[in-house]
Order: sequence, then structure tokens, then C-alpha cells
Amino acid sequence: MNRERMRKEAREIFRASVEAADPSRCIHQNVRLRQGILHIGQAAYVLSNFSKIFVVGAGKASVSMADAIEQILGDRITGGVINTKYGHSCPLQRIEVNEAGHPLPDEKGIGGTEKIVKLLNEADRETLVLCLLSGGGSALMPYPAAGICLGDKQGITQRLLQCGASIEEVNVVRKHLSRIKGGRLCQLAHPARLVTLILSDVVGDRLVTIASGPTVADPSTFTDCLRIIERYDFMDALPPSVIRRLRAGAAGKVEETPKPGDKIFTSCQNLIVGNNRLATEAARAKTISLGYNTLVLSTQIEGEAREVAKVYTALAKEVISSGNPITSPACFIGGGETTVAVKGKGKGGRNQELALAAAIKINGLQEVVILSAGTDGTDGPTDAAGAIADGQTINRAKKQGLSAPDYLRQNDSYHFFKSLDDLLITGPTGTNVMDIQIVLVR
Amino acid sequence: MNRERMRKEAREIFRASVEAADPSRCIHQNVRLRQGILHIGQAAYVLSNFSKIFVVGAGKASVSMADAIEQILGDRITGGVINTKYGHSCPLQRIEVNEAGHPLPDEKGIGGTEKIVKLLNEADRETLVLCLLSGGGSALMPYPAAGICLGDKQGITQRLLQCGASIEEVNVVRKHLSRIKGGRLCQLAHPARLVTLILSDVVGDRLVTIASGPTVADPSTFTDCLRIIERYDFMDALPPSVIRRLRAGAAGKVEETPKPGDKIFTSCQNLIVGNNRLATEAARAKTISLGYNTLVLSTQIEGEAREVAKVYTALAKEVISSGNPITSPACFIGGGETTVAVKGKGKGGRNQELALAAAIKINGLQEVVILSAGTDGTDGPTDAAGAIADGQTINRAKKQGLSAPDYLRQNDSYHFFKSLDDLLITGPTGTNVMDIQIVLVR
Repeated sequence: MNRERMRKEAREIFRASVEAADPSRCIHQNVRLRQGILHIGQAAYVLSNFSKIFVVGAGKASVSMADAIEQILGDRITGGVINTKYGHSCPLQRIEVNEAGHPLPDEKGIGGTEKIVKLLNEADRETLVLCLLSGGGSALMPYPAAGICLGDKQGITQRLLQCGASIEEVNVVRKHLSRIKGGRLCQLAHPARLVTLILSDVVGDRLVTIASGPTVADPSTFTDCLRIIERYDFMDALPPSVIRRLRAGAAGKVEETPKPGDKIFTSCQNLIVGNNRLATEAARAKTISLGYNTLVLSTQIEGEAREVAKVYTALAKEVISSGNPITSPACFIGGGETTVAVKGKGKGGRNQELALAAAIKINGLQEVVILSAGTDGTDGPTDAAGAIADGQTINRAKKQGLSAPDYLRQNDSYHFFKSLDDLLITGPTGTNVMDIQIVLVR
Repeated sequence: MNRERMRKEAREIFRASVEAADPSRCIHQNVRLRQGILHIGQAAYVLSNFSKIFVVGAGKASVSMADAIEQILGDRITGGVINTKYGHSCPLQRIEVNEAGHPLPDEKGIGGTEKIVKLLNEADRETLVLCLLSGGGSALMPYPAAGICLGDKQGITQRLLQCGASIEEVNVVRKHLSRIKGGRLCQLAHPARLVTLILSDVVGDRLVTIASGPTVADPSTFTDCLRIIERYDFMDALPPSVIRRLRAGAAGKVEETPKPGDKIFTSCQNLIVGNNRLATEAARAKTISLGYNTLVLSTQIEGEAREVAKVYTALAKEVISSGNPITSPACFIGGGETTVAVKGKGKGGRNQELALAAAIKINGLQEVVILSAGTDGTDGPTDAAGAIADGQTINRAKKQGLSAPDYLRQNDSYHFFKSLDDLLITGPTGTNVMDIQIVLVR
């Protein structure tokens, strides 16, 4: 039966995309040691030129990444410290693993970051520093500027977002309240040779954004911070220590974040080893082997999940009605990160909600299957990675007395798909390169 | 300067799409008279077999369509009556034009429809009836069942939608309260030969939906109506006359709408002469002549305008960052009808709002242009068809002190683009095949 087969195929395609983004695999694909030369992307480092190799970093996938680095470099590693989320560590040979708070940073995170800074202080001209960043790297490497406490920084972030500031604006302010973000890690490692390996969980893979760009030049200034704070009429809400720092910075009395063109960046390589495109390309390869005409739409899909679902279903319907933009068997793949403006009291995640909204729109179409899932295996506060919907989903739900529009209204996609046994449950995958949507049409 | 050139190209592409959907042109493309044989689509009608030719219909474009039919058939037309919107008429030679209310139907509409019915009563086996339908055809051809008044029907429609009923469910009820929808016009014309020519303004071009399918078999029943009314707990809100009719119908005491397989439909041809696909295909042809790699995504795009904008911009960004799904110079074309959940007090339309949301997302991208406009030349309650945005829109607005997010929050896209002189103003185009979006990336 085609529908069952297509559902199975959708799961296989998703699995292929997650496997491609496995952190260890991403490191091994990009980092190779051959005859004493460490090849990283297009660059090559002659190890005999270095007396020390340090490994630092932060993120939910940093342990897997560090483990792969240990497999490659073994006892050539002098030492290392990485921060990861509680419950995400496993013992490494030469690199110390610190567990810390995520998504809310905590004192344990600061403690681990202090160790990283201490290590970097020992770096010299003959040191190679490998920095491993992945999703969560910003919260997991907290290091507020002197006189500013974690709570202050968090409060500012949350309230700026509430005022309507963009995430880019919030990041400008955050970088100027940190001792490690906005290129300052690169400053700390100077004059060492620094290579940052990045598993990107950010739409568009902007280096300045991922983990707040600790090894990337920061074009923004203290003056920009003050301007943003004025724009959102936010001055009165700021702790005095923060106002003092920003004003002192704007007056040139606090050192700026390192700017584009700064010579410290000439000894720094930033390399994205894994991202949503890697995952969607693996998905594409899989779909082609399954015989689908495939279009990868974008790896930068954003928007309210239930509305994005309508665009995906519009594509599926067009294939059926006119054979455009590709003929069936057709597959559309998209990646990125949608959002959900929660209004109901149900349980769910952006991927499950997208699948639920899609189910409503494809109701009755015999041979359409839509899967949406997070590559990290987690979707919202649920144990599911996402869900899978097809043209029969709504009818099957009706037989159980479930009204899909009601569940959607309540943002209760989790219980809807749980009742139908249509949740996609993978457990934590160890990687995070945002979400994948797969639309199959036969 | 590329940006200016691209903006000009976007306008040209839109113009090409509107021209292709011109009602008169659509009729002439599909209806041809050669040596006494009337060719309509794949069918051919030997005119000497017919003693009478009637032309009926309703819609905002019905006058242009009827005019084209008069050009083709001239004094072979025995008589005709069409309903159109106030201000949309112009005198015809042999076909009577009635102006009536739209979007709210009125007594003038009923009057015109009564004339249509009277004409159809004169139709016999030797009569050819041409029925011309276009956007607004449902409201412009009102004919409530005996004992039911216009106000009752409207009230039911509005309140059912408010209760969360789908437009399909509302149509089921509406058809069973009408003497002309849901295939009943075909019944009235029987045993004449009936050809319905349709300019579709409906997502997916479903014949049962366009103008409530007056010449199409209706699979829904009076029993379905009662079920829908129970589903939305709506019985108490219904006028007694409506309840009586629906219950009598369900009990078999009122004639059902004609069903699929009914022999009356064997003498009826329904032909879509123009739709969104025609417009998007013309747009595609134009873009290709301009040198763009072009992908027509779908003609069935639905969803909240500002969220759909994010998907379009995700496609543009992907072209820039990875050359996918097509390489630049790239053009994406979409069609359909988005929606706006109005929360602010501004002025605008779905197309202008889509363009405004897109402008925010493409801010700073040098060579991206997005145009969104209604093919009828009207977008919401404004004098604009839509608007045009590019990577400089936000900066130009800032120089005028305009905050795009504020205007978006107020649903005030009209005044935003008016200030920038970036509205697309065409005046009424005479056609309506929904909206077009054009995304150009160089």
C-alpha cells in the first residue's frame, strides 16, 4: 500500500538527514591527520610547528565533537575544557567536560568558561587552539563582563525581546556585556593559531550569530548598544552596572569588541562542519535513491508553523493538479526553524504543529505524506522529534473522535499525534542542525 | 542600476500575467467559430443544430466575457442576461446586463437571476446555453429557495464561519438553500445543451466551489447540512424556515441538488478558460525572456500573508547563500490567495502586507525584489493592486522616519508603501484570477 510505503520512506529520509549531521561524522569529514599534517577544511597545519594543542568549546554536541577530535589527535592534545548541557556529557581522555545550565546559563557555566579562559591564557605563538561550537553554545559559555551578573544579562535579553527588539539587536547588546562573545575568545587565544569548528543551529549560518560569535569579528559597537536601548525606551529598566559599562564603552573607556580587519583574526579559521544544508542534502540524496523528483526549497525556512504548513501543502497540491514545479513522484525538502505563537494550553512543538496543520490541508489526498521533525530529536517540551501526517490522518482521527482543528486551536499537536501513534520518536540524536520538513507526493 | 532594473522587470512580469488572464482574451483563446461550427475547448457544436443560443452568467468579469461572446456569435445570439457588480457594466448588443450587489448580494441580484431563470425556462433540446462565470458569481447570482430570504442566508453564512466551519461546509449549506447553485442551473437549462465558461478565482479551481457550482453535480446532501449544523451546535440560531427546509429535504420531501451521475450533466460542458495558472505561466514566460531561471512554486498558495512572506524570502536567501533550488538570476513565482488576520487599525491588503513583511526579511540584501499583487488590480480596501519591496525598502523607510515593524503591527502596509511611492497601482484590470507573487534574485 503506497501510503504506508511513503510513510516509511519519509522516516528513512529523515534518518539519513540526521545521520549526515552526526557531530562525530561532521568532524571526521572535515578534520584529517595525515603524516603529521592536520587538514582542516582547505587549511593544513603542520603539527611539528606547535608545542601545545588546546581544545575548548561549548554546546550540546560539543562532547561528540571533542570525542572525534580525541580520536584524531589522541595524546597530541595538551589539554582542553568544554562546556555541555546537564546530562549530555560522557568521559573523555584528555579533555575536561563541564556540565552546565541550558537554555538558562548558570554559575556552573561560568565556572567552566573560567577554566577555558585560564587555558587560553597559556596559549602562545606555538599553540594550536581548536574551538568546538554547537547549538546552545551561547548559553553554555557564559562569562559576563566584570561587575555584571548573569541575572542582569538574562533579564535584559528577555525584556528587550518582549519590547520587540530583533534577535540581532539583542545579540549586539549581549556581546558588549560579555568577556568571551563577539570575537573576544579569539582575543584571549591570541597569538595562538585558532580554528573554530562549528555545527550550526542558526538560520542562515551567520558566524556572528552562532554562539554569539566568540571567534568572529564584531562590527557592532557600544554606541550601537545605547542606540538600541534608546530605541526601545529601555534605559530606565537597566541595572546601573550595565548602564555604566555601556556608557563607558561608548566613551572609549572600555575596550571594544574586536572589529573586522583586526589582525588577531588573521590567525583564526572559522569552519562550519555541519549545518541544515548538510542534512537536507543527505535527505535529497536519499529521496533520489528512492526514485523521487526532488526539490530542496530552502534551509532557511522561518515563520509560524501552521502557516508554513500551508505553503508546503500548496506545493503538494500543485504537483497533483498540474505536475508543477516538479512531476510526481515528487519530494520537497525544507529546513530551518519555524515558530509557534502559543495560544492554547496543549502540549506540542513547532514540528508537530506544522504536521497537524498540514494534515488538515491535505485531508483526503490519497498519496501525500508530510514529515516535520527536529534533527536533535526534540520538538518543544515533548519526547517526540516531530510527527508524520498524510491524507488519511484526519479521517483516522475522526474515527477516534478527535477534531484536528480543535487540537490545533489548543496547540495540542502532541496528544493528537500520540493518539494516532504518528509521533516521530527518535530520542536525542546528539546533533542539532535545526528542523527538516519532507513532503512526498505520488 | 540593478535594483531599479529588477523593480521594472517585476512590474513587467506582473503586467504579462494580468494580460494573459484578460477575460476577453481568455474567451477568444477557448471559443472559436469556424464555418458554422463553434469550437469550445475540445468540444465542437454545429450551430445549425440549434434554433436558439442563450447567454447567461454572473461575475465581476462577466461583461467582458459576454462582450467577447458577442464578438464571436453576433446576431446568432437569441438573448441573454448576465449579472455583474455595480459600476462594472457596459452596454452590450444582445445580452442584457444587470448590476447588483457584491460582496453582499441584494434584491437587484435576485431580480437579475429571476430573468436568467425565466430565459432558461424557454430553453429546449435545440437550445445552446452559454453560462459565463467569474469571481463574485456566487453573490451576484442569488436565488434563495422559496420561503427563505437573502438576509437569512447571509446570516447563516457569516455565523457558521464564525463558529469555525470551513468554507466547504458553508457551501454545502448554502447550496441547499438555493434554487440555482449546486447544479440546479443545469437542471433549469435541461434539456438544452449547456456550456459553462469559467474564469476561476478559487484556490485549486474546484468546479463545485466556483460560484457555488451552479452547473456542477453536487455530492452533498440535506442530511450533510443537518450534520454540519449539529457539529457547530447551530440549530437554535437558525430561522424556522431554514430548519423546515433542511429537515424536509433530509426526509426526502424537497428535491435534492442533482448528484454526480445524473443524466442532466451529460449535456453540460464546464470549461475553465482562465485561472491563476494561466497568469503564472504567462509570468514564467516573461521571466524566461528576461533571462531568469524560473520556478513556479504553486498556484494554490494560502496562509497568513506575513508568514507566507517568510517562506518566499527563505527561498531568496537560499539562492544567495547556496544557489538552491535554482541559481541566480532566479525568479520564484507563486499564486493563490493569502489572508490577513487584522489586529491593527491601519489600511492595507494581503498583498501589501506580504510585501511589507518580506521587506523586513530581505533588508540589506542588495539584489532581491518581491512584488505581490492582486490580478484584479485591487488589494483590500485600497486603490492599490499590491506593492513592491526590495533590500533597500527598509533603509529608505528609515530615512523617512518610518518603522516597518510598527506599520506591520498596525496592518498599515498601504500607508507605508504609499510614503515610499512603492504601491503598485493599476486600476481595475477587468479580470480576477487571485494574486501573484514574484520574487527576483540577482
